Amino acid sequence: MVIIMRPEATLENIAEVKKVIESAGLEAKIMEGAQQKIVGVIGDKTKLVSVAIDALPGVESSVAISKSYKLASREFHPQNTVIDVGGVKIGGGVPVVMAGPCAVESREQLFEAADIVKAGGAQFLRGGAYKPRTSPYSFQGLEIEGLKYLAEARERTGLKIITEVTTVEGIAPVAEYSDILQIGARNMQNFGLLKEVGKCGKPVMLKRGLAATIDEWLNAAEYIMNAGMPDVILCERGIRTYETYTRNTLDMSAVAAVKHLSHLPIIVDPSHGTGKWRMIKPMAFAAIAAGADGLMMEVHPNPAKALSDGSQSLTKEHYLDLMNGVKKLAEFMRAENLNPIVLD
Amino acid sequence: MVIIMRPEATLENIAEVKKVIESAGLEAKIMEGAQQKIVGVIGDKTKLVSVAIDALPGVESSVAISKSYKLASREFHPQNTVIDVGGVKIGGGVPVVMAGPCAVESREQLFEAADIVKAGGAQFLRGGAYKPRTSPYSFQGLEIEGLKYLAEARERTGLKIITEVTTVEGIAPVAEYSDILQIGARNMQNFGLLKEVGKCGKPVMLKRGLAATIDEWLNAAEYIMNAGMPDVILCERGIRTYETYTRNTLDMSAVAAVKHLSHLPIIVDPSHGTGKWRMIKPMAFAAIAAGADGLMMEVHPNPAKALSDGSQSLTKEHYLDLMNGVKKLAEFMRAENLNPIVLD
Amino acid sequence: MVIIMRPEATLENIAEVKKVIESAGLEAKIMEGAQQKIVGVIGDKTKLVSVAIDALPGVESSVAISKSYKLASREFHPQNTVIDVGGVKIGGGVPVVMAGPCAVESREQLFEAADIVKAGGAQFLRGGAYKPRTSPYSFQGLEIEGLKYLAEARERTGLKIITEVTTVEGIAPVAEYSDILQIGARNMQNFGLLKEVGKCGKPVMLKRGLAATIDEWLNAAEYIMNAGMPDVILCERGIRTYETYTRNTLDMSAVAAVKHLSHLPIIVDPSHGTGKWRMIKPMAFAAIAAGADGLMMEVHPNPAKALSDGSQSLTKEHYLDLMNGVKKLAEFMRAENLNPIVLD
Amino acid sequence: MVIIMRPEATLENIAEVKKVIESAGLEAKIMEGAQQKIVGVIGDKTKLVSVAIDALPGVESSVAISKSYKLASREFHPQNTVIDVGGVKIGGGVPVVMAGPCAVESREQLFEAADIVKAGGAQFLRGGAYKPRTSPYSFQGLEIEGLKYLAEARERTGLKIITEVTTVEGIAPVAEYSDILQIGARNMQNFGLLKEVGKCGKPVMLKRGLAATIDEWLNAAEYIMNAGMPDVILCERGIRTYETYTRNTLDMSAVAAVKHLSHLPIIVDPSHGTGKWRMIKPMAFAAIAAGADGLMMEVHPNPAKALSDGSQSLTKEHYLDLMNGVKKLAEFMRAENLNPIVLD
Repeated sequence: MVIIMRPEATLENIAEVKKVIESAGLEAKIMEGAQQKIVGVIGDKTKLVSVAIDALPGVESSVAISKSYKLASREFHPQNTVIDVGGVKIGGGVPVVMAGPCAVESREQLFEAADIVKAGGAQFLRGGAYKPRTSPYSFQGLEIEGLKYLAEARERTGLKIITEVTTVEGIAPVAEYSDILQIGARNMQNFGLLKEVGKCGKPVMLKRGLAATIDEWLNAAEYIMNAGMPDVILCERGIRTYETYTRNTLDMSAVAAVKHLSHLPIIVDPSHGTGKWRMIKPMAFAAIAAGADGLMMEVHPNPAKALSDGSQSLTKEHYLDLMNGVKKLAEFMRAENLNPIVLD
Repeated sequence: MVIIMRPEATLENIAEVKKVIESAGLEAKIMEGAQQKIVGVIGDKTKLVSVAIDALPGVESSVAISKSYKLASREFHPQNTVIDVGGVKIGGGVPVVMAGPCAVESREQLFEAADIVKAGGAQFLRGGAYKPRTSPYSFQGLEIEGLKYLAEARERTGLKIITEVTTVEGIAPVAEYSDILQIGARNMQNFGLLKEVGKCGKPVMLKRGLAATIDEWLNAAEYIMNAGMPDVILCERGIRTYETYTRNTLDMSAVAAVKHLSHLPIIVDPSHGTGKWRMIKPMAFAAIAAGADGLMMEVHPNPAKALSDGSQSLTKEHYLDLMNGVKKLAEFMRAENLNPIVLD
Repeated sequence: MVIIMRPEATLENIAEVKKVIESAGLEAKIMEGAQQKIVGVIGDKTKLVSVAIDALPGVESSVAISKSYKLASREFHPQNTVIDVGGVKIGGGVPVVMAGPCAVESREQLFEAADIVKAGGAQFLRGGAYKPRTSPYSFQGLEIEGLKYLAEARERTGLKIITEVTTVEGIAPVAEYSDILQIGARNMQNFGLLKEVGKCGKPVMLKRGLAATIDEWLNAAEYIMNAGMPDVILCERGIRTYETYTRNTLDMSAVAAVKHLSHLPIIVDPSHGTGKWRMIKPMAFAAIAAGADGLMMEVHPNPAKALSDGSQSLTKEHYLDLMNGVKKLAEFMRAENLNPIVLD
Repeated sequence: MVIIMRPEATLENIAEVKKVIESAGLEAKIMEGAQQKIVGVIGDKTKLVSVAIDALPGVESSVAISKSYKLASREFHPQNTVIDVGGVKIGGGVPVVMAGPCAVESREQLFEAADIVKAGGAQFLRGGAYKPRTSPYSFQGLEIEGLKYLAEARERTGLKIITEVTTVEGIAPVAEYSDILQIGARNMQNFGLLKEVGKCGKPVMLKRGLAATIDEWLNAAEYIMNAGMPDVILCERGIRTYETYTRNTLDMSAVAAVKHLSHLPIIVDPSHGTGKWRMIKPMAFAAIAAGADGLMMEVHPNPAKALSDGSQSLTKEHYLDLMNGVKKLAEFMRAENLNPIVLD
C-alpha cells in the first residue's frame, strides 16, 4: 500500500500514519518530495486489508499495490494448475468444450441435446437444473429432476456433467450428480455459497460477475480455495458495459490477464458473452487463439422453443460446424507450438 | 414485446413468428413497411418472459416494452407505500436516517457509535454483524455476538436496528434481533436468499447491485414481495462505472426513476456511493432535495481505527453538522411544499 | 509516481529504473520489503508524463499519484474562481441558470423560448446554432443565422448568451455573438479546439465528456487555461454507464469532486444528464443542494415539435414551477449558511 | 420506431401521436392490448431522426428499431468493401498489419522502427506526427517534420503510411504525406473533422470512441462516406469500462458485430486495447481468429525510452515472434477455409 498525503499534511499527521501502520505490525517508509509526501507500507499483505488509513488526518488517498489473494496467485503457485475430471484434463494444453442447453427442460430435450454435444466432440454436458432468473415469473428450473436427467445423460453419452449450484442447500445434491459445480455470475460474491462449495470435494467453475474486476474474481476464487478446494476453473462470460448491441461485452483480454496473475485454468463462454448465436463462432475461435483452456456454449435441439436464452443457442448444424473449426485451430496451434501467452 | 424482422425475412418466417407467439397464448400484430417488418406482441406480460423469439429464422432482434415486475410497479399500486417500523414511518414524507458503523467491531465501539447516532437525531442504527468482504482474509464480522450488541444498543438508545443478512441460515437470527433486514448489493440477485427473506415477516431493505439496472433491481424486489413481504425499501448505493475518483458512482437520478416506476420507498447511501467522507454531506443534501425517503450513512467514533470502510465514515463532529443541515433542508421543503417528484 | 516491481525483479532491474528516473531529472526512492519492492518517484510532476517506466524489465506496473494539471488545481489556486460575465457572477455563491432550447430552430421559436426563460428568472439563454449530431441526416443547426437570432434575443430580453462552438473556424463568429462559448461533451478532448478556444478572450464552459474521468476533464480545462483563458466553467452532463433507463447517468458527486480538486465553478445539466423532462426538477434541486454553481437546462415552447431533444425539454409551465423551487432552495441554503462542500 | 404509451394515455393522446407521425410523412400503426398500447412508425428512416415523440402527452418512451446510417450498412451494400491502398488490399481476406511507434520522435527512431516493422512483414508503418494527449504538458508530436520522416521511411522501406489527423487544418498536410488518414478515438464524434476528412480523397481509418456504441461508430463512418469517401476502415481499440487492470477493454465481439451490420473492413488495435505489451500477442491471435481484416500495433526500438505508450509497445524480438504466429494462423485459416463470420 502507498499512502499519498495531502499537500498541507503536517509532520504530526505523518507521524500518526506511521504509528497506525506500525501498530498493525507493518513497516512504514516515508518519502518526502518538494510537492508531495508519500508513505510506503511494507509487510505481509493479509494484514493490510482492514486498516482504514484514508480516514487519518492529512491523508489524501491510498493505493493498494499488492494483491489480497494468495492461493490463486501465480507468485504462490508458478506452474499452471491442471484439473483432472475423471480423466479429462482442464488446463493441460488441450482445450475442453462444455456444451448443452441453458436449462434442462425435459428428459427428451436433454438427451437430444446431449447426443448433439457428444457428436461434436465436447467433453462436458452443461445444463441448468437450478436457474437464477431476473424475474420471479421466469422458468426456474427442474431442480432435482433436472439433476437426475443430467446423470442419465452422462450414462448415455459418457460426457462429464457441469451444472450450476445457486444455494447452500443445493450443494449436496448438485455435488452428488455433477462432476463440476458451477457458480454463476450473479453469485460470484455470494461469499456464504463460496465458502461452502469449497468444502464439497468436487472441482468448481467460477463465472466472473457481471461487474467484477479481475482482482475481485481471483479473490472470489481464493474463498473457494481457502475453504479447501484447489481445483477452481475460471469462466469469462462477458461484463456489463454501455454497449447494448451485445448482451454483455466479452472481455477476451481476461484470458491473458488471468494467465499472468494466476495459475488457474480459464475458459470462455461466448454464448452469454455475446447473447447472439451468430457471434459464438468468431468468439470461440478467438478464445482458442488467445490461449483459453476451453469453451462453454449453449446448444439446443430447437433454440426457438428454448425456455431461456434461445437467441444465444446454437443449432446442431452450427454447433458441429463450429466444433470442426475449433478442433482444427487448437490442433494447429499445438502442432506449430503457437503459444499466445507471454509469461516472462 | 416488439419483434424486428431481418430485411430478407420471408412470409413463412413471419408466419412462424406469429404461430409461436399465439401458441404462448399471446396476440401478434404485424406491421409491414417498405424497409422493415415488425411484429408487436400483446397480452399478459408474465407469459412473455420465456419465449425465445430471437432464435426464430428471419428475426433480427426483439425489444421488451413491458415490465416483468408487477407487485413492485406503480401501475399496480399507484399510492406510495409507507412502511411502519415500530412507529417510525418510511416513505411517509419525512426522511428517515440510518446511521452507524460499517461493522459491529465491539460492544464499546457500537455503544459509542449508537450514542452519536442518537444524538444526531437518526431513527435507525446500522452496523454489520455479517460482512461480505472481497477478500477471505478481511474481517468477516462478529456474527451472532454482533447481533446481540445491536439489540443491546436498541435498548440503550431506543433506535431501531437495521443489519445485513448474507445467508439463508442467517435469516432467522437476524430477523430475531433486527427491525429491518438488509440485503446487500452483492446479494441483490442471490435469488435463493431473496425468496427466503421475503418469508421472515420483517421489512427488507434491498440495496441496488453494483451493476444492476433499475429494472433488475425492481425485479429483485418483486422476488421478495412475491414471497410474501410487501414492505421493501430500496437503497441506492452507487453503481460501478469507469470513474475511479469515487468508489462508486452514486446514481442520484435513481431516486426519481424509482418514484416513477414504483410505489416503494427509496433511500440513498452516500457513504458507499462515494467512498469518501467529505462527499457524504453534499450527496446527503442532494438526496433529500431529490425526494429520497431517507439516508443511510456510516458513522464511526474513530474512523481511522475502523476495521472496514474508515475512509467513508463520518466522525461525530461531521455527522452532527450534516444532520443539522439535513433536518433543516427537509423541514424547509415540507414547509414550502417543494415536491421534486413529477408523477403526472 | 510509484513503480511496483515484479517479484522476480533483479537488482540490475531496479538500478535501471532508478537510472531512467534520474535521467529525467527526478528523484527515485527504493523501498524493499519481504514480498515486494517499490520505487517512489519524487519531483516536478510535469516531467513525469512521458516516462515509459512500465516498459522497463522487471516492472510490474506504475501508479500515478500526482495530478498532471496545475492551473486548474485547487492547490495552485486555493480560492474559488468567480467569473464575471457582464455583471452576472458565476461561482460567487448565487447559482446561475442557463436555459433555452436544445437548438435554435427559428427566430420565432427562439424568441418565444427566450421570453419564457426570462420570465423564470434565469440569467443566460442557451440554444445551439451548431449542433453535433450522431447522424449526418439529423438537423445540424442554423449556424450563423442562429447566432444572429441569439444576439437579437439578448437585445430583447437582457439575457446573456451561451452557445456551442464545434470547430476552430466557428470560434470567431461564436465569440462575436455569444457571451460564453460552450465546448460540448463530444469535443471535450478535441485538443485543437481547446487550444484555440482558449485564445478567443471570452469565458468557456467545458462539458464533461461522455466517458471522461474527472481527471481528464480537469486536464481538458488545463488546455484552455494554458492557452490564456482562466475563466472556465465546468458542466456535469451525465456519463455513459450500463443503465439504459436514463439517457446518461448524472454524476452528482462530480460537483463535490470538482470543488475538492479545483477552484473552477461547476454547473449541472439535468436535461442531458437524464434525458427525461420529469427528472429535471429532482436533479436540479439535488444539484443546488449539492453545492453546484448553477444549472443548464432545456426549455422549449413546444417540446413535442422540437427538432432535437424534445423528450428532455421542459414546457413553460414546468420550467416556471422548477425555477420557483430552485430559487427558494438556493435562498434558504444561503440564509441558513448550509454549505455542503467540505474543504478542510 | 415503436412508441410505448403510458397506461393512462387517452384516445386523444394516441390521436395526437398519430398526427405528429403523419405530419412528418410517416405512417403510424396502432396496436392496442389489454395492458398497453403501442404505436409503430413505418417509413423512410432518415425522416425519423428529429421527431421528439417522447415529449408528447401520454407517451411512456420510444424505441428506435431501424438504423440511422445507410451507406455504411450491409443492407445497402451486401458485399464486403475491399480497399486498395497502392496495391495493398484491406478487407480482401488477407489480414494487413499496421505497426510502428506511438509517436514519431526522431528520424532515427522512426527509421529504426520502420526497419523492424518491415522485417516482420507488415504492410503499413504507423506513427503519430500530431498527438492528442490528455495533458497539455505531454509531448504533442513533431507535426510537419514528423510527416516528412514518415514519407522518407516509406521511400526507405516500401511500407505504406498511416498517421493521425487531429484538426481540419491538418488534413491537407497529412493527406499529402500519408496513404491512409487516421481519425483517433477522441475525435470519433468531431463531426467537423469527419465531414472534411471525407473530402480529402484518401482512405480514412476511423477508430472507435472510448465510449462509443457500435451504432454511433457506424454513424460516424456515415459522416465520412456521406462527404464523399467510401473507403473507410474501422478500428476497434478498446472501450472504457470499470476494469482497471487493462487500459481499456478490447471489445473483440465488435469484429463480428461490424461484419453483421456493415460491409466495411475492421481491424483491431491490441496495443491501445490492452495497454500492456504482454497482452498484444494473445489479442492479436484472437483478432485474426475472430475474422478481423487486420491489426494495428505499437512497436518501438526501445519501449522504455518511448515518449508515449512505452508500456504497450513491442520490442523487435516480441514483434517478430508475434508476426510469425499471426502469419501462420491467417494462412492456416485461409487454407482450411475456416470462416468465423456467420452472415446467413
